[in-house]
Amino acid sequence: MKKQIVVVGASAASEEVTRLAEQVGVLIARAGAVLVCGGLGGVMEAAARGAKTAKGTTIGILPGTSRADANPYIDYAIVTGMGELRNFMLVRTADALVALPGRHGTLSEVAMALRLGKTVVSLKSFEIEDVLTASTPEEAVRLALSAG
Amino acid sequence: MKKQIVVVGASAASEEVTRLAEQVGVLIARAGAVLVCGGLGGVMEAAARGAKTAKGTTIGILPGTSRADANPYIDYAIVTGMGELRNFMLVRTADALVALPGRHGTLSEVAMALRLGKTVVSLKSFEIEDVLTASTPEEAVRLALSAG
Amino acid sequence: MKKQIVVVGASAASEEVTRLAEQVGVLIARAGAVLVCGGLGGVMEAAARGAKTAKGTTIGILPGTSRADANPYIDYAIVTGMGELRNFMLVRTADALVALPGRHGTLSEVAMALRLGKTVVSLKSFEIEDVLTASTPEEAVRLALSAG
Amino acid sequence: MKKQIVVVGASAASEEVTRLAEQVGVLIARAGAVLVCGGLGGVMEAAARGAKTAKGTTIGILPGTSRADANPYIDYAIVTGMGELRNFMLVRTADALVALPGRHGTLSEVAMALRLGKTVVSLKSFEIEDVLTASTPEEAVRLALSAG
Repeated sequence: MKKQIVVVGASAASEEVTRLAEQVGVLIARAGAVLVCGGLGGVMEAAARGAKTAKGTTIGILPGTSRADANPYIDYAIVTGMGELRNFMLVRTADALVALPGRHGTLSEVAMALRLGKTVVSLKSFEIEDVLTASTPEEAVRLALSAG
Repeated sequence: MKKQIVVVGASAASEEVTRLAEQVGVLIARAGAVLVCGGLGGVMEAAARGAKTAKGTTIGILPGTSRADANPYIDYAIVTGMGELRNFMLVRTADALVALPGRHGTLSEVAMALRLGKTVVSLKSFEIEDVLTASTPEEAVRLALSAG
Repeated sequence: MKKQIVVVGASAASEEVTRLAEQVGVLIARAGAVLVCGGLGGVMEAAARGAKTAKGTTIGILPGTSRADANPYIDYAIVTGMGELRNFMLVRTADALVALPGRHGTLSEVAMALRLGKTVVSLKSFEIEDVLTASTPEEAVRLALSAG
Repeated sequence: MKKQIVVVGASAASEEVTRLAEQVGVLIARAGAVLVCGGLGGVMEAAARGAKTAKGTTIGILPGTSRADANPYIDYAIVTGMGELRNFMLVRTADALVALPGRHGTLSEVAMALRLGKTVVSLKSFEIEDVLTASTPEEAVRLALSAG
């Protein structure tokens, strides 16, 4: 199976963060890995759009009960109906996690990923114990792909 | 997005059921739909193998905590760590469900799918109220694809 | 810990089923066991009311995101936010399960309980393989309490 | 229904943290609220022991598949079989959350609680945005009880 890299971050992102997320998505796809995200807007949509631009594959793990909630760049939608608890499903599915800026939801994903022993790369996001820090999308994806 | 057809049934299947499941997988792939299953053995593996034979796409929603649990015909693995509760995640993700012979786990999936208003097609499996009955893989996949 | 008996059945129940469920709740409480249910109406509310009449303890495992969803006879509410997937949490929490008449949701609980090797007692409900059959509330609770 | 206060923290705690957790449990029980925790050792066990010392009620939401995993001070055990994902079930069930020192698992609970808009009180634990800070068990429980 291909590597599955999960990208997390705010569902409403600034222009700068949107550009970073999109570039992360492009690089994941170019590396032949699969982009997995929460399937909605902001960082999730930007990363998925980037991956599709580079002809990659995208999976969205949705909080709601309908596939129609997915952003237009999602190839395959997993429908959990679990609300925010789907964050944990994302984390379990990750070979590695790239975190962009976000708030409490993003922090819960980063913390749970560390709890489960996953590699977490922060790109201008939370820099807590055990998180790897990247300053560019290139560095973030390189660190994520070298995991496990 | 492509249609996502979930195939459920026993994790240890007879030769006849294995052949039926494989053929269901072939037909789902030929129709351009995505085969989603529980990612393990028996009916799940046979259906996934069929889909790959026909160059389709397969997703496995795993009960355990490791991607390595997936059978070799799974393209993308969702790792739930929820044990048998992952059955419900399968059901939510389905546009329609094709049930092959199985036991209590399969019945729980069929019942939950009906509870959520999903189309369920039985191919020599449970024939309870609201389930559509098919006598061949061709009929099962045709009924499943005409859903929703 | 006290035994935890889960009662499942329709969320909109006939007068007769309501009476049966209430009596099951009374008997569970009198036996010193804890009544666990889905926390909403119909069979769930009748069983909880019965248990409280007999000064028992009741736990509701709710599908929604608010404790306020619980019926007035619930002492302790577990809030899952998982929708119908909370059915499986109920089943896991059961030492034994008493099923009253219901539809697909109830069947999913019965089937999952059997899948997990739990004792299931049917009181005028589904009588599938491995389910114990009771014809009165007294017999149902006696069979449930003799489990495991 | 009584207030349900969730206490989280390390599953292996220092003597000092154990004493703090036990005192938090005592105070929750004395206030007539229910102590909810993850049901295992360390902070979870100390808080439950404190609550039982003060004749309170304790609920454990367990990660595994067996009620026998619960520490001896748990009155009612919810068995999730979801592994670490049960952290989120704890958070949803909380009227307020008191966090004692812990590591990534505790942080995931704090972050998810904030994400869901719950009151979080830190007693020598994570002090991130929106968390209330207490310096004694008394202050922690008073802040938690004044929530919502």
